[in-house]
Amino acid sequence: MADKKFVEDITSMEVDFAQWYTDIVKKAELVDYSGVKGCMIIRPYGYAIWENIQRILDAEFKKLGHENVYMPMFIPESLLQREKDHVEGFAPECAWVTIGGQNQLSEKLCVRPTSETLFCEHYRNIIHSYRDLPKLYNQWCNVVRWEKTTRPFLRTSEFLWQEGHTMHETEEEARAETLRMLDVYSDFYEKTLAIPVVRGRKTEKEKFAGAVETYTVEPMMHNGFALQGGTTHYFGDGFAKAFDITFTDRENNIKHPHQTSWGVSTRMIGAIIMAHGDDNGLVLPPAVAPVQLAIIPVAQHKEGVLEKARELAEALSAKFRVKLDDSENSTGWKFSQYEMKGVPLRLEIGPRDIENNSCVLVSRVTREKSFVSLDGLENAVAEALAKVHDELYARAAENLKNRTSVAHNYEEFLKTAEEKSGFIKAMWCGDSACEDKIKDDTGGVKSRCIPFEEEHIGDVCVCCGKPAKHMVVWGRQY
Amino acid sequence: MADKKFVEDITSMEVDFAQWYTDIVKKAELVDYSGVKGCMIIRPYGYAIWENIQRILDAEFKKLGHENVYMPMFIPESLLQREKDHVEGFAPECAWVTIGGQNQLSEKLCVRPTSETLFCEHYRNIIHSYRDLPKLYNQWCNVVRWEKTTRPFLRTSEFLWQEGHTMHETEEEARAETLRMLDVYSDFYEKTLAIPVVRGRKTEKEKFAGAVETYTVEPMMHNGFALQGGTTHYFGDGFAKAFDITFTDRENNIKHPHQTSWGVSTRMIGAIIMAHGDDNGLVLPPAVAPVQLAIIPVAQHKEGVLEKARELAEALSAKFRVKLDDSENSTGWKFSQYEMKGVPLRLEIGPRDIENNSCVLVSRVTREKSFVSLDGLENAVAEALAKVHDELYARAAENLKNRTSVAHNYEEFLKTAEEKSGFIKAMWCGDSACEDKIKDDTGGVKSRCIPFEEEHIGDVCVCCGKPAKHMVVWGRQY
Repeated sequence: MADKKFVEDITSMEVDFAQWYTDIVKKAELVDYSGVKGCMIIRPYGYAIWENIQRILDAEFKKLGHENVYMPMFIPESLLQREKDHVEGFAPECAWVTIGGQNQLSEKLCVRPTSETLFCEHYRNIIHSYRDLPKLYNQWCNVVRWEKTTRPFLRTSEFLWQEGHTMHETEEEARAETLRMLDVYSDFYEKTLAIPVVRGRKTEKEKFAGAVETYTVEPMMHNGFALQGGTTHYFGDGFAKAFDITFTDRENNIKHPHQTSWGVSTRMIGAIIMAHGDDNGLVLPPAVAPVQLAIIPVAQHKEGVLEKARELAEALSAKFRVKLDDSENSTGWKFSQYEMKGVPLRLEIGPRDIENNSCVLVSRVTREKSFVSLDGLENAVAEALAKVHDELYARAAENLKNRTSVAHNYEEFLKTAEEKSGFIKAMWCGDSACEDKIKDDTGGVKSRCIPFEEEHIGDVCVCCGKPAKHMVVWGRQY
Repeated sequence: MADKKFVEDITSMEVDFAQWYTDIVKKAELVDYSGVKGCMIIRPYGYAIWENIQRILDAEFKKLGHENVYMPMFIPESLLQREKDHVEGFAPECAWVTIGGQNQLSEKLCVRPTSETLFCEHYRNIIHSYRDLPKLYNQWCNVVRWEKTTRPFLRTSEFLWQEGHTMHETEEEARAETLRMLDVYSDFYEKTLAIPVVRGRKTEKEKFAGAVETYTVEPMMHNGFALQGGTTHYFGDGFAKAFDITFTDRENNIKHPHQTSWGVSTRMIGAIIMAHGDDNGLVLPPAVAPVQLAIIPVAQHKEGVLEKARELAEALSAKFRVKLDDSENSTGWKFSQYEMKGVPLRLEIGPRDIENNSCVLVSRVTREKSFVSLDGLENAVAEALAKVHDELYARAAENLKNRTSVAHNYEEFLKTAEEKSGFIKAMWCGDSACEDKIKDDTGGVKSRCIPFEEEHIGDVCVCCGKPAKHMVVWGRQY
């Protein structure tokens, strides 16, 4: 049976989560592997998800006044070295171009791992007065970070992302931008991708190289692992000083502007897969699904069925991304196929439905069937898609709740880390030595963030027993 | 006077066309130079033009069934070498990554100059049966070709482009795709960018490395130079054989698919600048202009003027890309500024206009003023923009006509090449030795293409006197 085969090809997530993930990205035709170590091919179905993500986020950025630009992909070694913390953070994972046009280059060029340095060099040329501020730039591009172990979407040597880089008159304004963009990201995760996130500030140890503060949104995957979902950084005037960027302020004083950067990447697709997928395959949030509604004619050789299915497909295509499958494959095969591809909603239409002037809508999440009238079908589909979104969010929120524990002491912490996969809330003294110890003792549990909503769990650090400064959310990560 | 200054900053195109070009790209804030040799920074105003180009072309591609994908940016040396003509064509201008993550790589990686090899490697994995064909893929990405002399948009070491790569069951279908995509490009030039093009086939010497046939659209720049505006290639099954791509056809035979590729790049922005620009600055075709209509309040401190200007701006923004300049700069400065930026249409509104319930529309091309009623303004603006497009097209077509000559013999050819900058139509024997000789004797005149509409100018080759095979359009190029 063709429809059995599809499901059998996917390893159960309970058996082997990593293999389940690999099966999904291959079977759903999201990516293909390439002969280039650590690089992936994003196939049409995967890229269409990225295009939807881009379209929605880009509109949000522009609404807030951001403009897109394009910077060179190469960074001369001397430019990368201008800011000390930054180069220390990125140099180990750089890919270097050393030959151009058959000649050895006099200075090697790094393939951008991120573009703070290039933006700063440009900002130095174009910022002179407070009238030139703020500068709110963003770019959509590819970046390269040389990774030893790679996994499609989650960690690849090359990936696609957007990087916003902004410059402001005051610290206050720059800090507000950092938090405003974190809001854009967390809203996008929750309202577009139906994935709840923990929002917070990174510890000193986990900050971006060169940043004063790094903020993060951390969604939880189905297996309890965290994924760094998106980060925003406040740089103060550190880069501005290193790159000698100055402006004349309103009182005619020469000052350095305050800087931010923020980015999300194709890793988001990994988050979608691991937050929503199940043993039958991918489950896509309606807002970014390349196909939102699969129309499957039932008994399609019976008179009038295909005609009706085509008529519905045409009418609904005005509002939704619709795929009508009128191929010769069996109905069962089609059901499995679109389930596996994560299409949020299935519409079945057969001879009896037509007689009743109705059709069947089936949610990919709950598999609940509803019989709806063909009159007002457009509204019914819109409501059903909104419901799929809500079902997805509720399921992911339930997972986040179930897999979040509290640890009052170190014994409890270690026991939880060993027995349960998920987040652990625990108090922390603020010392990175405790982060190192926890990571060593647990084989990989790290501080995810100091959440904006801290709880008072106790007075002392769960690790060293010294007075606690913050509550931290801890977890394993991709 | 501020409004004088802007124009003075732009060198006249009659005095120094190259300097005029450089002045425009800098003053209109399209690009900035970077510290990376041969790479440009595309600034917001320049990138917004590219976004409009992308949006319109991408929709055309998708209408014809093409899907977007993303391939790795690195090509291992062994993969690039798989097709002999191709590697010979591109190896001299490759940038090579030799170090990754602080280690010398065992095989160096070329930063893609074009992606035929990567697409072929992928197609080998996913094409098995005629049911898998056609494959109609496209990608939007950056590519690198190491150039010795560079100029923004026209020739840079890194540039942005789209590359379509398709695979077909039959030669006929692949050849049809090659011509279909050439139509998309020539329609885009003529109907969107208002630039007339000469369409035709490249000679053997000017073909793409590895192609059986290369087709081209060749727009003429204001100074009579050509620009290779976009090319489509038919590859036969050469790459398919080199990469061992096979499929089972409808008769159960194993066959190689037939292949095409096609691309246009940010060079299009160079074509817009040089086909339409004038001594007052940029002139943008309405369809891709980031700002289509600049609204300038006249005597804006008089009661009611700013309110009215804002009201118009808001109403017109629903349909057009509008910029209202209510800054404190002088009206004259504003007029010059938006002229220089190439905004197709200016709307002036002052106290007397408001009294008359009218406003003034001014075309960037002809500077003709028209007084239009505020009732039905939306239609008047739409018509005025359409007229600007037509004016631009007519002016460029006139230039193409005036700068196209016919040469019946070699003396006439050499005289024309020396005295006139433009295209020369002349007969050709088909031998690339004559192309070489013409290039040497004229200091750079090359075959642009064998146009689809050939004329019978004579019976013998303009260069060697042997029997002529084709009429060729010759010219100097960027």
